[in-house]
Amino acid sequence: MKIILIGAEGDIGRAAFAELSPRHEVVKVGRSSGDIHADISDRASLVAMYEKTGTVDAVVSTVGTVHFGPLTEFTQEQFMLGLTNKVMGQVNVVLAGLAFVRDGGSFTLTSGVLDRDPIRMGTGAATANGALGGFVVGAAIEMPRGLRINVVSPGLLEVSEKRYGAYFPGHERVPSDRVGRAFAKSVEGAITGQVIIVE
Amino acid sequence: MKIILIGAEGDIGRAAFAELSPRHEVVKVGRSSGDIHADISDRASLVAMYEKTGTVDAVVSTVGTVHFGPLTEFTQEQFMLGLTNKVMGQVNVVLAGLAFVRDGGSFTLTSGVLDRDPIRMGTGAATANGALGGFVVGAAIEMPRGLRINVVSPGLLEVSEKRYGAYFPGHERVPSDRVGRAFAKSVEGAITGQVIIVE
Repeated sequence: MKIILIGAEGDIGRAAFAELSPRHEVVKVGRSSGDIHADISDRASLVAMYEKTGTVDAVVSTVGTVHFGPLTEFTQEQFMLGLTNKVMGQVNVVLAGLAFVRDGGSFTLTSGVLDRDPIRMGTGAATANGALGGFVVGAAIEMPRGLRINVVSPGLLEVSEKRYGAYFPGHERVPSDRVGRAFAKSVEGAITGQVIIVE
Repeated sequence: MKIILIGAEGDIGRAAFAELSPRHEVVKVGRSSGDIHADISDRASLVAMYEKTGTVDAVVSTVGTVHFGPLTEFTQEQFMLGLTNKVMGQVNVVLAGLAFVRDGGSFTLTSGVLDRDPIRMGTGAATANGALGGFVVGAAIEMPRGLRINVVSPGLLEVSEKRYGAYFPGHERVPSDRVGRAFAKSVEGAITGQVIIVE
């Protein structure tokens, strides 16, 4: 398969690349790294990305920004970041990409653990993750030409421990190879409309 | 208890009012009806609402607008309506209201069935509903002063059949009294961080 991987240089993107690249042609996309540059906050840059790659078999997004902060201090602008970037950005990966994915191909997005196992300061992320879960359930039944859509929802990765571990007390750390396999399940399997939990 | 009910004249708001008003002082709020006017899309109008009501024991929101349309025709603007209005609007009901709810009081928001039982043209609603579910899970553990938060997620109401029934083939229709009791469970009970499903 030819697969677009958005966020290839992030911790989750590396996990997806390690799993998928031995068997597939993976086009790495990043804001400032990778084979092609694109920013999910800018739909025009996603359209430009698809025009460069041409038709593909699968699209994987592992990106999305949210604000972390105490609930009582959240501003509307901080709260909206998760909804506009992590949610709308990844939804735009799908909406802009429908015409560029072959019949029976797939989209795989990324959410995270915080809407089922919350942490302090994680309300923005919990909201964005829940939204993405709802999106794939709703979108799966309307996808044209047998296209599929799922979202991978991983816990904190072992490799992310150093940067984020202090915020996730007691959460199980997830090995990257398990996260990678979740993307293979979506891309190479047949499921659709699923939140693929990796914990 | 003194309870603010936002959206008191809608189908879900009437269900909540019928259940709660025999036992409590319910202040009806609507965009253009009710005891006080407020629009959840305008945080300043929510602050003004709280300044008029003063301190209350519970806040119930039964409102929120989303766009319905085929997935393949959704524009970004249409998609964002659900995120800015139904999600951010109800989140602002909470963020703006934290200082106006008594210790141990509660917020109860409203989502809907479409993130677990999707229909055609319902992707925007599915996404907004999922977001609200994630929000209450994340927010519940950070609420100050023993405040609680839940979201009621009803199926299509029997009384909404005429307007929306054709879009929900085969979905069970929910009697309003069952929907009302879900709000009582949140307001008068002790649960928090729950998606209260009414089907």
